[in-house]
Amino acid sequence: MDPHSNILKYKHLGIYTQNEYVVYMREDCHVCSSEGFVALTRIRISNATTSIVASLNVLSSGLLLPNEIGLSDAAAKKLNVSQNEMLYVSHLEPIESLSHVRAKIYNQKLDFKAYNNIINDIVEGNYSNIHLSAFITACAGDRMDIDEICDLTKAMIASGRQLDWSKDIVVDKHCIGGLPGNRTTPLVVAIVAAYGLTMPKTSSRAITSPAGTADTMEVLTNVTLSSEEIKAVVEKEGGCFVWGGTAQLSPADDVLIKVEKALDIDSEGQLIASVLSKKAAAGSTHVVIDIPIGETAKVRSTEMALKLKNHMETVGTAVGLKAKAVVTDGTQPVGRGIGPTLEAIDILKVLKNEADAPKDLTERALLLAAELFELSGKEEKGKGLETARQILKSGKAYEKFVAICKAQGRFSKPVLAPHKMEITAERSGILKRIDNRKIAKLAKLSGAPQSISAGILLNIHLGEQIEKNQLLYTLYAESKGELNYALEYKNNHNDIITII
Amino acid sequence: MDPHSNILKYKHLGIYTQNEYVVYMREDCHVCSSEGFVALTRIRISNATTSIVASLNVLSSGLLLPNEIGLSDAAAKKLNVSQNEMLYVSHLEPIESLSHVRAKIYNQKLDFKAYNNIINDIVEGNYSNIHLSAFITACAGDRMDIDEICDLTKAMIASGRQLDWSKDIVVDKHCIGGLPGNRTTPLVVAIVAAYGLTMPKTSSRAITSPAGTADTMEVLTNVTLSSEEIKAVVEKEGGCFVWGGTAQLSPADDVLIKVEKALDIDSEGQLIASVLSKKAAAGSTHVVIDIPIGETAKVRSTEMALKLKNHMETVGTAVGLKAKAVVTDGTQPVGRGIGPTLEAIDILKVLKNEADAPKDLTERALLLAAELFELSGKEEKGKGLETARQILKSGKAYEKFVAICKAQGRFSKPVLAPHKMEITAERSGILKRIDNRKIAKLAKLSGAPQSISAGILLNIHLGEQIEKNQLLYTLYAESKGELNYALEYKNNHNDIITII
Repeated sequence: MDPHSNILKYKHLGIYTQNEYVVYMREDCHVCSSEGFVALTRIRISNATTSIVASLNVLSSGLLLPNEIGLSDAAAKKLNVSQNEMLYVSHLEPIESLSHVRAKIYNQKLDFKAYNNIINDIVEGNYSNIHLSAFITACAGDRMDIDEICDLTKAMIASGRQLDWSKDIVVDKHCIGGLPGNRTTPLVVAIVAAYGLTMPKTSSRAITSPAGTADTMEVLTNVTLSSEEIKAVVEKEGGCFVWGGTAQLSPADDVLIKVEKALDIDSEGQLIASVLSKKAAAGSTHVVIDIPIGETAKVRSTEMALKLKNHMETVGTAVGLKAKAVVTDGTQPVGRGIGPTLEAIDILKVLKNEADAPKDLTERALLLAAELFELSGKEEKGKGLETARQILKSGKAYEKFVAICKAQGRFSKPVLAPHKMEITAERSGILKRIDNRKIAKLAKLSGAPQSISAGILLNIHLGEQIEKNQLLYTLYAESKGELNYALEYKNNHNDIITII
Repeated sequence: MDPHSNILKYKHLGIYTQNEYVVYMREDCHVCSSEGFVALTRIRISNATTSIVASLNVLSSGLLLPNEIGLSDAAAKKLNVSQNEMLYVSHLEPIESLSHVRAKIYNQKLDFKAYNNIINDIVEGNYSNIHLSAFITACAGDRMDIDEICDLTKAMIASGRQLDWSKDIVVDKHCIGGLPGNRTTPLVVAIVAAYGLTMPKTSSRAITSPAGTADTMEVLTNVTLSSEEIKAVVEKEGGCFVWGGTAQLSPADDVLIKVEKALDIDSEGQLIASVLSKKAAAGSTHVVIDIPIGETAKVRSTEMALKLKNHMETVGTAVGLKAKAVVTDGTQPVGRGIGPTLEAIDILKVLKNEADAPKDLTERALLLAAELFELSGKEEKGKGLETARQILKSGKAYEKFVAICKAQGRFSKPVLAPHKMEITAERSGILKRIDNRKIAKLAKLSGAPQSISAGILLNIHLGEQIEKNQLLYTLYAESKGELNYALEYKNNHNDIITII
């Protein structure tokens, strides 16, 4: 090999770094020394068909030979590279859109073209986590005006696929910051589709929680469908509840959200662009947004909620969506089950109008369905709730739910986990607090969401009078070991549920 | 091993990620699955004596066994871990100072305590690159007022070692954004120490340039000295020129600077805190700051320069330093040599008052020495320059320079590289432009700074009338291969030097 050429041989290392593209090279490789590459240098790597930009991590050990090169899994996948393939390595030409990020850092207003360039570079993988974090931070803290939020949203819509359902009205819903157990989505889809509206709903799987809507629905039906299959289900039944992971809608959003999580900041502009770009790209025309307010919810004050509501609705109009934001109670969990199977049981109880169906979950779902009826102009103001309730009571929502499940490939009965343990109150008093983070951790330790029937069934609500030895919740697990593991955690934490 | 314990066995992988702490674990390891760790989760890793926080990269391949754990080199060094040592892995308790970063993102003013908490967490390695980038961005774009810059500077000083020379006056100099060849530092040290002032100068090595001051001085003397050795040299000779890499002064700055480089932003507040914290921690009392203005310099306008000057001097006072900023010409390189040996030759020519000593380098060094004389109150306003010139002309500066070199262990003669190539003008005209980035790249391709005698000797200045076939510059290299490699680059780039 020409000692001055920039060609290295690919070796698979199998290092997963989420979205970030990382390239691994030996510190004594001829390319590093001749090009002056050091750790964290941003480098372009190309093969015959495509090229990516990656951050360099330098290897001093025998993981690679000096003429070899490794890539993080995401980078290898993007390049579609095979073992021993020759890769060309070069200095990175300047990323021009970073000048817009710097302009934003220096408080300048950006236009659509600037946001579009930034978003395209993000989708191409040209930004490192350092660049992404700077962009998010520069846009946070009220530094984007409403025009800029509109432009960012439009740029995000344009960056990925856009679905078209050939319908005048396509409805959708979104909840800002999930509450444990708040699994209204499948209920709203069933009610709205039973009414005759189109609601092609895509949902996510759990990332750090004990269940996502897609995990819960997978207990009852298939959720991993191709675009063609989704289209067929929606044409037949008017609605679906599928996993959105393969949809490639607003792909920049998937990248930005992971960095926002790491920073734990909710930039209003980014949040609005994130939600509305996904909805617009999915072909929705009318969207209701649920904004729960609560101490541990994403939105903590009525003032924040009303400002967000106003901006959501304005940006919605700008991108051609009728959006309505509904401010709801976010002070406590909704429903009883936490974990895929237990939440699926809640959903079926509501749909079948069973006596012990969780009322809070029922009412929340009816409210959102009613808002969609009114927003789409199908029902007069104030009439939507009664219509939604009738559809649920009549059993039509349950029929539609079963029909959609069958159209998606199966309708399965949820099966409770074989191992369980009832946790009772050690004292009497008023239920003051449920630590949502710790309850979620407990459900995860019991095995959820990988063990689909694992989790927690809550028997209580905030503010209730609790008697000593009263049942608080039941832990479910698929193995004795997992049950014990959860119990050990429970025994070491006496502040999961606070009774005073 | 208890399947529920969070203990894994350390295996050395040898992956260098600069400062960032990265931990490598198998996706099927029992800790990842039970704790719900996914790629980029921030995790605490502890051994018997210490603990660190690292970002998770997940391995799917055979680089580790499921019960093994790997660390990036910086993380392994910080933990001082040995092969096969058992490490304890746990969830990260919340990093409290990130709430201050979030407050800064939301435009709030931070106090000393908040900056101190942030800086301490940065020094402990608790911030990922995402957090560091957010902190830097939130502080950029004029978002820190002068009080905040003072508080940040004080926090940075407090975060590391602080030297004490037991002298009333300890002088230092700093240049904002280096120009190629602008090697004034050794000259200023020699002149100022010959006068009788104390100037314990620490300098950096090249990171991306063809030479740092420490690389250049290493041609002539030893620069890697222990704290005790530095103290002895300064006590004997009044000055030194050593590598500052081991000094642990303002360690947060070393971390922040690397992220700022990746973002390519110059946050004024961070810049001031960076420079002044290093100087104050080094025990300086009087500091002159050189601010070159030029199209390709860090500071591009007189307005920016004057604001920076004003803030530098104000913050200096607040942290107990007399600081004076001098605005200079930054439109073209200073001196003739680029590369360690060639710059060392420039320095010796100036000190020995040789006829072909570069005048621009001489005058720049005299100006800075004069400012230090006046700032320290040793010379009246307007008298400093004459005094500095006398010390240089009399040969006392050269004597002092040789004495310091000998005190540092040796005084060696620079030796020119064995291979050279003269590059001449292909046409006549006015020298319009020297591309500093490309000239630096050319010097690096010829071998600098690793090959200490490699580099470029410039024969021209901007604005000069150039005749066809006139010598423009000479390329020096230690091997024929390196010379050819540089020549190939030169032949492929006809815009390194522009004559019109």
